[in-house]
Amino acid sequence: MSFREDGAAAVDWVAAYLEGVRNLPVLAQVEPGDIHAALPPSPPEEPEPFASVLRDLDAVLLPGLTHWQSPRFFAYFATTASDPGVLAELLVAGLNQVGILWRTSPALQELEEVTLDWLGQLLGLPAGLHGHIEDTASTGVLSALAVARALAPGRRTVLCSEHAHSAVDKAARLLELELRKVPVDAEFRLRPDALRLEDACAVVATIGTTGAAAVDPVPAIADLCEAAGVWLHVDAAYAGSAAICPELRHHFAGWERVDSIGVNPHKWLGTPMDCSALWTSRPDDVRGTFSLVPEFLQSPDEAVSLSELTVPLGRRFRALKLWAVLRCFGRTGLQERIREHVRLAALFESWVEAEPGWEVVAPRHFSLVCFRREGSDEENERLLERVNATGEVFISHARLGGRYALRLAVGNYRTTEDDVRLAWEVLTREAP
Amino acid sequence: MSFREDGAAAVDWVAAYLEGVRNLPVLAQVEPGDIHAALPPSPPEEPEPFASVLRDLDAVLLPGLTHWQSPRFFAYFATTASDPGVLAELLVAGLNQVGILWRTSPALQELEEVTLDWLGQLLGLPAGLHGHIEDTASTGVLSALAVARALAPGRRTVLCSEHAHSAVDKAARLLELELRKVPVDAEFRLRPDALRLEDACAVVATIGTTGAAAVDPVPAIADLCEAAGVWLHVDAAYAGSAAICPELRHHFAGWERVDSIGVNPHKWLGTPMDCSALWTSRPDDVRGTFSLVPEFLQSPDEAVSLSELTVPLGRRFRALKLWAVLRCFGRTGLQERIREHVRLAALFESWVEAEPGWEVVAPRHFSLVCFRREGSDEENERLLERVNATGEVFISHARLGGRYALRLAVGNYRTTEDDVRLAWEVLTREAP
Repeated sequence: MSFREDGAAAVDWVAAYLEGVRNLPVLAQVEPGDIHAALPPSPPEEPEPFASVLRDLDAVLLPGLTHWQSPRFFAYFATTASDPGVLAELLVAGLNQVGILWRTSPALQELEEVTLDWLGQLLGLPAGLHGHIEDTASTGVLSALAVARALAPGRRTVLCSEHAHSAVDKAARLLELELRKVPVDAEFRLRPDALRLEDACAVVATIGTTGAAAVDPVPAIADLCEAAGVWLHVDAAYAGSAAICPELRHHFAGWERVDSIGVNPHKWLGTPMDCSALWTSRPDDVRGTFSLVPEFLQSPDEAVSLSELTVPLGRRFRALKLWAVLRCFGRTGLQERIREHVRLAALFESWVEAEPGWEVVAPRHFSLVCFRREGSDEENERLLERVNATGEVFISHARLGGRYALRLAVGNYRTTEDDVRLAWEVLTREAP
Repeated sequence: MSFREDGAAAVDWVAAYLEGVRNLPVLAQVEPGDIHAALPPSPPEEPEPFASVLRDLDAVLLPGLTHWQSPRFFAYFATTASDPGVLAELLVAGLNQVGILWRTSPALQELEEVTLDWLGQLLGLPAGLHGHIEDTASTGVLSALAVARALAPGRRTVLCSEHAHSAVDKAARLLELELRKVPVDAEFRLRPDALRLEDACAVVATIGTTGAAAVDPVPAIADLCEAAGVWLHVDAAYAGSAAICPELRHHFAGWERVDSIGVNPHKWLGTPMDCSALWTSRPDDVRGTFSLVPEFLQSPDEAVSLSELTVPLGRRFRALKLWAVLRCFGRTGLQERIREHVRLAALFESWVEAEPGWEVVAPRHFSLVCFRREGSDEENERLLERVNATGEVFISHARLGGRYALRLAVGNYRTTEDDVRLAWEVLTREAP
């Protein structure tokens, strides 16, 4: 095998894939078990050329992919692995750094601290927060709640809105904390008047909920948490990236006062899976909860290692891809893309509002539009399935105020107005 | 930016790096803060070309890298990001699959199940285990212990040997389980006669401990765990890969009887960070512990999603890189490399044994040699620092039976006999 030759073929494969992905069925059109059945039941005995991998990627795996890179992917929160992000992953793999200790990769650790500081500046976070990268926001909220639990012995309740992400449920289960879901107002925002903090160790507020991208009233929640000495974590996994645009920053009022914040550059900042930023104003408490330096990791260096702040011991050089993205887009490039997505979502919203028989069902703050067609929940659910079965676009759903809602999330850097228009055409065509 | 042009430059960069990495100082020769200080304090405003990223990778970051890809890296457990593994990461990033649900990437999920089944066959695991990929073995043991805790309410003790990995300590802390460390015998193996399982929910046995690559007596431990109804997890993060060689498989006796097994292909199977395999004979219990399917993830499919078995919701397409490695090496190719590493370690061991003033301090089962020079612990520690300061090779240490030991771990696919000989030359040269 020649790394250069096979590398050229791999680059070509990805380039051709990205050039053609718009025209592939967005949602995989296979049944459970199809891909499994198409693969050999036993591993190969003898080496095969890398070309065989590329061949079977096309022949066997491609039909089983849902194309997150498609500009017509509008489900959940749409993402982009941008060109510099993708190529940086090649560098990450080639270098194969394993961050278990500062000395095992000083550049990994210090670049991670610097890029998170850069990103904090871009998002308008206050100076002095400590940032590091987790795999996903699920791990980030788990970490934050573990610290909160350790700091408040005997207080075993976590509060969040009924629209908070299921990651909070999972973290509470793992940490054996009681989770209390607080009701929301008519715009799906946590109601601070319903917060009872007597036995609480933490509150999770969300800026940009999964269902409706609602914005919890962080200033009022922070007042209560400060008064009660309760850890406040802000989950801004999706929407946090929007704080790079000054005109959207008002949605983030109060997040500079909280104990920890999660934002996913792998959602809306062009960074490939996985890269979830976690900042905290209390890094010493995080370290106090997680630090364990066994004999085999003791070293003469004075540096604190990032592994003292996380559940996993080893970390990838994820900072390199975030650094590449921040360098190759710059503040203005990232702002442009976020603004364009917000513009496209507003445009789609205007079409829904103008069309009889359709309604927008949640305020649109960012690039997510929640809407529905007149008729029952079941009719809307069937509409969603028909739309997705076409393979032309892919959208998802939520339940808002007890009603089934369709969701169109703009978030792919290659999405154009024509792609959004196509989504609307498919929806109106498939509606009864 | 042109993806093809920049991609060609990135492939060239990695190819040249791998061609030259043998001659770079293995351990980064920088002080804490040096890399930080060399980076701009603020993010760029305007886009920069990808070429700037490559330029600064050389100019700014390279001196701060510890070269895990160096064939002269012998510390901790040496690793390899093999050529097909590296190129597969490019494909993974280009496709940017996000496995949150079967339908969001059927190929990701089914390839993960198939490759873990293949790997289980290669390692001689029984059919019928369910495998999935975690980021690291730390997360794997956390998951296993979370399931064990859920299955045995009121039993809050975990047992492992005093040589088990610190990941067990961290998991126990997060799960609020009491960890009881069991003494080891003269060969650093857990003593089954010291296991008291009355209040235990789990035992962690290790095949290939971090310090000495010792092999706990799994058959005897499994007898006790079966009788007491206690979950048994086997941590074979490093050594598990060696089970691909029939002549080494006797070390793994009994692991077919346990509840969960962790093996890290990112350690000794040519796969870039991160890729940690976790098999269980009780996938329904794992799912029972972790499954949470919120409204927004409900779908008409019948498939169980891998995210129902893990802490994080989203998963990368890690299976693709493991698949590429298994394809491009085949069983025979992987066996060859593991055998060569074991041969090189045995050779090094023979040099240490033959040299007056040096001794081997633990039985060598795999590719790790634990040894020391006559004199005090402090003298050995200073020897280690002198050796590593040369930059010619990088080794690490452990404390075995209260004594400071030097560790030489062979594990890089590019390591030759000359590289191992160099390590011995540097050691004898730097010894007083």
